[in-house]
Amino acid sequence: MSLLQRSVQAIFPQDNDFRNQARARLYQLALPHWALGDLMDLSIDLAGITRSMTPNVSKKAIVTMAGDHGVVAEGVSKFPQEVTPQMVYNFVNGGAGINALARQAGAEVVVVDMGVAADLNHLANAGKIINKKVGLGTDNIAEGPAMSLAMATRAVESGIDIANELSGRIDLFGTGDMGIGNTTPSTAIAAILTGKPLQELTGRGTGLDDEQLKHKLKVLERILECNKPDPRNGLDILAKVGGFEIGGIAGLIIGAAANKKPVLVDGFISTAGALIAIAIEPFVRDYIICAHRSMEPGHRAMHDKIGCRPLLDLNLRLGEGTGAALAMNLVEAATAVLTEVATFEEAAVAGADK
Amino acid sequence: MSLLQRSVQAIFPQDNDFRNQARARLYQLALPHWALGDLMDLSIDLAGITRSMTPNVSKKAIVTMAGDHGVVAEGVSKFPQEVTPQMVYNFVNGGAGINALARQAGAEVVVVDMGVAADLNHLANAGKIINKKVGLGTDNIAEGPAMSLAMATRAVESGIDIANELSGRIDLFGTGDMGIGNTTPSTAIAAILTGKPLQELTGRGTGLDDEQLKHKLKVLERILECNKPDPRNGLDILAKVGGFEIGGIAGLIIGAAANKKPVLVDGFISTAGALIAIAIEPFVRDYIICAHRSMEPGHRAMHDKIGCRPLLDLNLRLGEGTGAALAMNLVEAATAVLTEVATFEEAAVAGADK
Repeated sequence: MSLLQRSVQAIFPQDNDFRNQARARLYQLALPHWALGDLMDLSIDLAGITRSMTPNVSKKAIVTMAGDHGVVAEGVSKFPQEVTPQMVYNFVNGGAGINALARQAGAEVVVVDMGVAADLNHLANAGKIINKKVGLGTDNIAEGPAMSLAMATRAVESGIDIANELSGRIDLFGTGDMGIGNTTPSTAIAAILTGKPLQELTGRGTGLDDEQLKHKLKVLERILECNKPDPRNGLDILAKVGGFEIGGIAGLIIGAAANKKPVLVDGFISTAGALIAIAIEPFVRDYIICAHRSMEPGHRAMHDKIGCRPLLDLNLRLGEGTGAALAMNLVEAATAVLTEVATFEEAAVAGADK
Repeated sequence: MSLLQRSVQAIFPQDNDFRNQARARLYQLALPHWALGDLMDLSIDLAGITRSMTPNVSKKAIVTMAGDHGVVAEGVSKFPQEVTPQMVYNFVNGGAGINALARQAGAEVVVVDMGVAADLNHLANAGKIINKKVGLGTDNIAEGPAMSLAMATRAVESGIDIANELSGRIDLFGTGDMGIGNTTPSTAIAAILTGKPLQELTGRGTGLDDEQLKHKLKVLERILECNKPDPRNGLDILAKVGGFEIGGIAGLIIGAAANKKPVLVDGFISTAGALIAIAIEPFVRDYIICAHRSMEPGHRAMHDKIGCRPLLDLNLRLGEGTGAALAMNLVEAATAVLTEVATFEEAAVAGADK
């Protein structure tokens, strides 16, 4: 049995006994009914995910997956492709947005080369990044599939590997991405898996103007015409219109779920990875916490499809895992609500009139 | 000159030089234009508030102001009045929602008796709370003013005192409240200062049913009929329909602004305090960060009036300062964006096509 098959078979829904136990305690807390709102819903999820009334989320990692995209040849991004490896160096040197925000959240940043179109072996050899390179960027999805099915499987299994390796010392995962051009494959995935029209889903990415946005939409129409993945087959979608880092993110989510760890899904690209993961195994849904709603117009449709209200809505559109890092403190706060707040009885506080 | 007058005269708008300097740096960060959205807007505010390109927000306090309300005689709350002192004990013992969330945020909790209808002197003598008691609860505002103008001034000056005392060791303030019945005076303040009809503003507080909500609305109509404060006079509004803890919160905000410190305004009751503070001195607006949007329907109108988009929207309705505590990590994250993220030049990353 393959790593992917084994991992999928290890994924079960959240544990209902722990959910019920957590809910029963939250009902008794010395505060008006459900007065901490979404934080209380989240703490039930954390009990159900971790099978614990004292969910541990203190050891945190953002896994930032980097990969390149052949579709940049179509002029779908404002930034040149060499920015992908340049940003990998920036991550390694601690100067990127994700470094600043992960530090603030007390999370480590794990950088993975899933398929950057540059030689980064020296960084991997120095232990500064993890080398899971599937290829030197995907093929141009406006002209054919991004990668073979074997490569898609390898990308997902690389993400699972990383989740498995980190699960010994990490309680809470956050996903992250870096890859010039990657809103284009993510939009294609969103269109296939939400069923919404491209016009509603396609956004400005790193800052396209009106003309460039129109052009991106046309490229996306060509992508869907010349590929035609099976919408019920996550690996086929990933192979036809995906990206190496998107596959890695899907794998990380599957691996987190198989290890019964919560995973904060970052922005538009990470959520495309989450949709692929759910298409492969729907039970992973129970382990996903949507970190934030980004400025990309398609993000809302993706969250609706997942059935998840994101914790934050701060007009972010950076990726890297920045939204996931920002949401980590809220996840810790949710566990504190479950474990540190006294009940009416413990605090000797009078309850509400019936 | 009174403490209030002196404090008001010490409040100036944010410093535009520091705002511009911060904006100039943020434009150069190695990320797509304004890709960290609201966090970048916030970091400009923090530079403008603190007059620094490295705003310090690491030393944090939630100031939770407690007071009682004569209007509970009208049956506007589900909880009995003795819950106010009981919750003060809960705060002191570290078992309340605000204790758990402040711990998570690395903030201390400062509890102030602004006017609880119980003798809490032993807690003040033991140094566990600050005694600023203006009275044993306000008078019933459905029958007349809450307090005299002198008491209103004293409540506000008590808040200023606390801000002044804490400013030596605290960089970032959060407001908080405890007081059974206090959504009723807060709704009255919202109606007077936003000009919106009571029907749009009145909510279920700690969990009123439909009948009780109708009753609360009728009580609020009586409150506005029998009082009639001058909508351009913050102290008059506070005296006629306010509360001791609401006055304390207004004073804390004024004091924070006079000390050039940012202040996170918590939920519905705290935002009523902010509206009073702004009515007294409009420049305080520049020092206010709205922490979250609560479930009270009138909260949005109050934020619109202030002109502030809250950082969080998590269906909270607890008060105590819990939303302010949750938002503190986002404020710290905003300073990290300004001070820890490398520019395109520093990181040697290629910029966008022009």
